[in-house]
Amino acid sequence: MCPLTAYIPVSHYVVMGFVKLGFKGRDVISILDFSREDLEELFAYADRIEKMGRVKLRVLEGKIIALAFFEPSTRTRLSFETAAKRLGADVISFSGEEAISVAKGENLADTIRMLDNYSDLIVIRHRYEGAAKFAAEIAKNPVINAGDGKQHHPTQAMIDLYTVKKLYGTIDGLTYAVVGDLRYGRAATSFIYALTLFKPKFVYLVSPPLLRARPETLKLLQERGIRFKEVENIGDVISDVDVMYVTRIQKERFPDPLEYEKVKGSYKITMDILSHAKKELRILHPLPKVDEIDPEVDKSPYAAYFLQAAYGVPVRMALLALIFGVEI
Amino acid sequence: MCPLTAYIPVSHYVVMGFVKLGFKGRDVISILDFSREDLEELFAYADRIEKMGRVKLRVLEGKIIALAFFEPSTRTRLSFETAAKRLGADVISFSGEEAISVAKGENLADTIRMLDNYSDLIVIRHRYEGAAKFAAEIAKNPVINAGDGKQHHPTQAMIDLYTVKKLYGTIDGLTYAVVGDLRYGRAATSFIYALTLFKPKFVYLVSPPLLRARPETLKLLQERGIRFKEVENIGDVISDVDVMYVTRIQKERFPDPLEYEKVKGSYKITMDILSHAKKELRILHPLPKVDEIDPEVDKSPYAAYFLQAAYGVPVRMALLALIFGVEI
Amino acid sequence: MCPLTAYIPVSHYVVMGFVKLGFKGRDVISILDFSREDLEELFAYADRIEKMGRVKLRVLEGKIIALAFFEPSTRTRLSFETAAKRLGADVISFSGEEAISVAKGENLADTIRMLDNYSDLIVIRHRYEGAAKFAAEIAKNPVINAGDGKQHHPTQAMIDLYTVKKLYGTIDGLTYAVVGDLRYGRAATSFIYALTLFKPKFVYLVSPPLLRARPETLKLLQERGIRFKEVENIGDVISDVDVMYVTRIQKERFPDPLEYEKVKGSYKITMDILSHAKKELRILHPLPKVDEIDPEVDKSPYAAYFLQAAYGVPVRMALLALIFGVEI
Repeated sequence: MCPLTAYIPVSHYVVMGFVKLGFKGRDVISILDFSREDLEELFAYADRIEKMGRVKLRVLEGKIIALAFFEPSTRTRLSFETAAKRLGADVISFSGEEAISVAKGENLADTIRMLDNYSDLIVIRHRYEGAAKFAAEIAKNPVINAGDGKQHHPTQAMIDLYTVKKLYGTIDGLTYAVVGDLRYGRAATSFIYALTLFKPKFVYLVSPPLLRARPETLKLLQERGIRFKEVENIGDVISDVDVMYVTRIQKERFPDPLEYEKVKGSYKITMDILSHAKKELRILHPLPKVDEIDPEVDKSPYAAYFLQAAYGVPVRMALLALIFGVEI
Repeated sequence: MCPLTAYIPVSHYVVMGFVKLGFKGRDVISILDFSREDLEELFAYADRIEKMGRVKLRVLEGKIIALAFFEPSTRTRLSFETAAKRLGADVISFSGEEAISVAKGENLADTIRMLDNYSDLIVIRHRYEGAAKFAAEIAKNPVINAGDGKQHHPTQAMIDLYTVKKLYGTIDGLTYAVVGDLRYGRAATSFIYALTLFKPKFVYLVSPPLLRARPETLKLLQERGIRFKEVENIGDVISDVDVMYVTRIQKERFPDPLEYEKVKGSYKITMDILSHAKKELRILHPLPKVDEIDPEVDKSPYAAYFLQAAYGVPVRMALLALIFGVEI
Repeated sequence: MCPLTAYIPVSHYVVMGFVKLGFKGRDVISILDFSREDLEELFAYADRIEKMGRVKLRVLEGKIIALAFFEPSTRTRLSFETAAKRLGADVISFSGEEAISVAKGENLADTIRMLDNYSDLIVIRHRYEGAAKFAAEIAKNPVINAGDGKQHHPTQAMIDLYTVKKLYGTIDGLTYAVVGDLRYGRAATSFIYALTLFKPKFVYLVSPPLLRARPETLKLLQERGIRFKEVENIGDVISDVDVMYVTRIQKERFPDPLEYEKVKGSYKITMDILSHAKKELRILHPLPKVDEIDPEVDKSPYAAYFLQAAYGVPVRMALLALIFGVEI
């Protein structure tokens, strides 16, 4: 469908994000396209779906959902596929090697036109910034961004906030630490964007100097009156934190491998570091995780990331149901 | 199922192609297996399905359709998958890397026997000439050729003719130009074969010398009394053409890359070339296209290829419904 | 779900395998987890399903079955997928390149947790011994081993025995020859294990010296009182055999390619060798086969492997139905 907004700088969303537009027929490109009210409607829906247990709803019977994963992400793909199937929709998809050959074989516009013909909604994952927005400009039917470029992964942010809501009963008034790659990591950036729609007490941005949040991210936090601080060491702030959002730091981001070796230890979450944390601290992670969280932590009460992963299905079910405008 | 005909030279189809056999339980190996009456029945069915809009019909519930894509083709695969699912059938499939390892791991006959056990109909795509025919000889259930070798892509030809019918109300009496690789391109060759079942006014075969249509193609045109002419330059004939069927010219076909560079410009369709065309000219292309059509043309009224692509689903739905003998 | 037994040496199953536990909610890790009574219940179910013909049962509607093929196996994957879909379940899956990148990206436990969240049952294929057992320890829902390591492929063994039962009316009292790689071949080893749950008259273990059955396999046969003999040449015993189970010998198993060349001829089943067989001999093979059976044999009455392959679907349907505790 036609995008509701042109491709505009992030700061413009300052106004955007407070208008409730509802979900019906909408594209989902950036979490900043949505208002707090939108998200609260979504969370209420997800909660209702979650409470129903693992039943198959038939509200999207006859609909076809196309999954176009130009960049591989088995978790996100299977989560959308599960959500779609549990709503009764059919799914068509490509990913992996096939996606690469599609991308080589024709321009993105032609591929999107094809999927738009075959399906009622397109879920797209792409490494290039703006790919989802571009797809939404081409497609007549709604497009959901399942992650593109370095900033946007709106459905992940929805799941993240929903998890916080379920854990604490509120998103407001909590102290957050967002840890890891805040520069290139789209999940971390989308989570920070999402926090600006609410009223966090404080946000710590914890990263090595090379991977600090981009200027536009900081500008958005300022414009929306969010109190935040950039720090390099999680140990310095952990005792103050309610929600710790951990993301991976990729070795490839460092021009010099030695630089990476120097910092990586400081961003690995261990039971030792957690001994300084509040008892109520909960750790989120968009997964998959590699070694940024010690496996020991998995079994501790701090670990909320498996719960968070499980929320992927009801939140995405709620989103699909709302976009198609069906009652649940 | 047992093939209706042994593997015979194309010229023998002169008689074949005028006998109406109906679709029920039949294999679809070559467009030349079908008569004009067969295709008109198919088109009427497709038209009825198209008019129903994007509903899910449940006429193939309980059927399983196997897609065996030994050669990748995301478009054709997703189009068949969409058609099958919209009819209520289940789909099992392999393609890409998995197809390669299947092909290496056992002989084609064993693979086909496996799919024939699991499913009610096999759709096969293969780079080797005759693979679909061979599969049909092994399988008890019907086999549809989704493209094999250099000649046959019968369902593409069905979609192409259906598009012409929808655009002009008739396939007869029009002047066609088939442009590009007429030697190795299976879509172009199948389209020319398909035209011989109708009464075109004239057919221009437009290709570089190296990629001229094969002798048997020309012989078939002659035997069936089709007026045609081989030309090298689309500019020479464009003002006379109603339907231009464009296909890609692959660099790899030329022993000398310089040869390719010399000719490629002459086979690229631009708004400039189209300034000499009739206003009613419509361009078809089996897609994906790379650079053989200037993107500017996409937005012009000449471009019918996106419409043609969209017809893939209803035509394939009609074909599946007819083969299974279900009423729609 | 929690495994019913800890990871114990094969010999301990001597007791295990004679206790009837039923299938409901169980993991399927090794054929030795099951009793003769269990298998007879399964076979009766499979027989009932088979007699229904190719209908779609709706007993698993609303269930989602996850197929996690870390090691490629198109046959096994499509067979499970067909079984699941014919029972009305939805399927989510990964395999091939995608599986490799999943395996690299995170630890197996996290991947299993993800699938366990998304689905109601996990089917896993993995090259490492014990992967399915490990997955069953992580997952809350049942796990089926679709082949792991060098010993276990329990659903294949179920299909194999079912085929013998259908051919001979009994599994007891027959003379078996298991031919090929008895050391690393999981299908052959699982078949031998499965025979120990019944009363075969005699079992010939036919392999080159390098690929003889492992000591624990021989010990199990002894402990369960199965009469057997290790031989190197099928020709020496063929006239005595009722059921010949053939498996592939992989060149890579031999440190010296010349060793392989020396033996391979002795393990290729030809019409010539079969001229010494009983008329009632039937050949099983887990497929895919490469050149260990001469294609001439395919058309002979000895070949039961295509029938056996076709039984894959009803046996796996029966297993899924029993695990979910649904009546058919």
